[in-house]
Amino acid sequence: MSDAIERSNARPIAFAGGLLDRVDQVRIDPERLADIWADPRARIVVLDGLDPVPAEGGMLETMAVTADARLVDHALLGIRPDGSPLFVSLLPSPPTEREPVFPPRVWQIAALLQAEELAIYGGARSLADWHQRHRFCAKCGQSTAPIKAGWARQCGACATEHFPRTDPVVIMLAEYRGKVLVGRNGRFPPRRFSALAGFVEPGETIEEAVRRELFEEAGIRVGRVDYLMSQPWPFPSQLMIACMAQAEDDALTLDTAEIAEAIWVNRADVAKALAEEEEALFLPPSSIAVARHMLELWLERG
Amino acid sequence: MSDAIERSNARPIAFAGGLLDRVDQVRIDPERLADIWADPRARIVVLDGLDPVPAEGGMLETMAVTADARLVDHALLGIRPDGSPLFVSLLPSPPTEREPVFPPRVWQIAALLQAEELAIYGGARSLADWHQRHRFCAKCGQSTAPIKAGWARQCGACATEHFPRTDPVVIMLAEYRGKVLVGRNGRFPPRRFSALAGFVEPGETIEEAVRRELFEEAGIRVGRVDYLMSQPWPFPSQLMIACMAQAEDDALTLDTAEIAEAIWVNRADVAKALAEEEEALFLPPSSIAVARHMLELWLERG
Repeated sequence: MSDAIERSNARPIAFAGGLLDRVDQVRIDPERLADIWADPRARIVVLDGLDPVPAEGGMLETMAVTADARLVDHALLGIRPDGSPLFVSLLPSPPTEREPVFPPRVWQIAALLQAEELAIYGGARSLADWHQRHRFCAKCGQSTAPIKAGWARQCGACATEHFPRTDPVVIMLAEYRGKVLVGRNGRFPPRRFSALAGFVEPGETIEEAVRRELFEEAGIRVGRVDYLMSQPWPFPSQLMIACMAQAEDDALTLDTAEIAEAIWVNRADVAKALAEEEEALFLPPSSIAVARHMLELWLERG
Repeated sequence: MSDAIERSNARPIAFAGGLLDRVDQVRIDPERLADIWADPRARIVVLDGLDPVPAEGGMLETMAVTADARLVDHALLGIRPDGSPLFVSLLPSPPTEREPVFPPRVWQIAALLQAEELAIYGGARSLADWHQRHRFCAKCGQSTAPIKAGWARQCGACATEHFPRTDPVVIMLAEYRGKVLVGRNGRFPPRRFSALAGFVEPGETIEEAVRRELFEEAGIRVGRVDYLMSQPWPFPSQLMIACMAQAEDDALTLDTAEIAEAIWVNRADVAKALAEEEEALFLPPSSIAVARHMLELWLERG
């Protein structure tokens, strides 16, 4: 058995490691919630559209609760270790107009934030984004409003409660005779390869999803599957479940709608890619992606 | 590293082990989909409301595709190993009126079905239920209709695509000095104990969700967390992620809104409970619950 937290020398996994106490009991206790909202230490995370705004010292920009701010328009993210409550606005905030770039602007800002702040941002972004895209009841089509301190919405007509989504995604390295399989999505920049991934569907386990995705995308059959680590990924709200899969063969049949290229790489190839050497076979996944940690862990385990 | 599939002597995990080829490329290929719908071997899973209907030999009851059935009202579950396509209706089907019982009627029927058929049923139920409860667009409130062979819905007004939900849930045994923690939800029958569980929230890893839930529900702090196994749970559509957590102390502070009672039990207690001995301390989780497998695995590992 193994757990990623044992890698004491490793970089933290991006968007993980949040230090907020989520105080879930407060969400259903209107009196305590009102007290926390009125706490003079309470702050609201500032977002630019859904992007983070960096402040001094790797912190997220926050603002005080102003007299005209309404509790019902905000979600309680939790309480910081110093006792200050932290909220995020659920009202749509128009983003600054800008050209799409790669890596996305939010990834660039992520590198400026402390790990614990990046974790707060990820949760805040997922929650705010979910509210903006779920203003109506999927069951009856009428308007919904936030309840439970922003951790649910309720329909004003049929009273159905709706909860934020978190979509489990498997992301995996197939291994065969000292090599692992990395793939390039057609939307990636040239030479950028990563682990293959796909959504877990209703009616399957994590291990079954890994086997299905590797067969669908790359045509390979795998036996044993081992869990490695997980990551919350806030674009918009995935739970990335990282696994290692033992392939039974290395012959590839690519689903080119999903995967433009895929290659088997050995430890030397991965080491050069991670070191970003000029003659490396490929560019590694971003340091905020769990795929980078998967490749690092595979190298470490030798 | 460990994987539940190595437990070769164990009962299969309920709702897992499906043998359908989900043929995901067919979902976005209208011509191939129409051919599969027209295949004389195609069958439709019969549901009673959302409950399964058992047929001979532990099979699910299915029916032929009739002349008046419309492809758009059905989801393609996949292709059976014998080549026959399998669908499920997405139209609401009123259930037979009946009294609520424990265990639920569906659990009783589950025991009659072959493992592979139960897996098909779980996926079919989750998908059919999601369609029935998501007929409107959460973004704009207008009507949606099934697309992609029933694996998504699209809004007729704003064109937003919506996908079936799968909600990740952590379910865990805290371990401390040769004992594990089991709890009783107030809705359980008397003496029935199981593993604690809770939804993974946006912005946290699996391991962080385990730590948060054990602290929220039982007041205990845990260090190392190890993944054990996973299970699709179709009531309505959870991915149960089973973990073992090493507790730092055994003092309990229960959140009685969630947990009516919790007890630390040793291996002898668990062995008696699993054997359903009369003098056992508690009644074990149902054999269709992953919690039962977790207790069995803990005993086996000694």
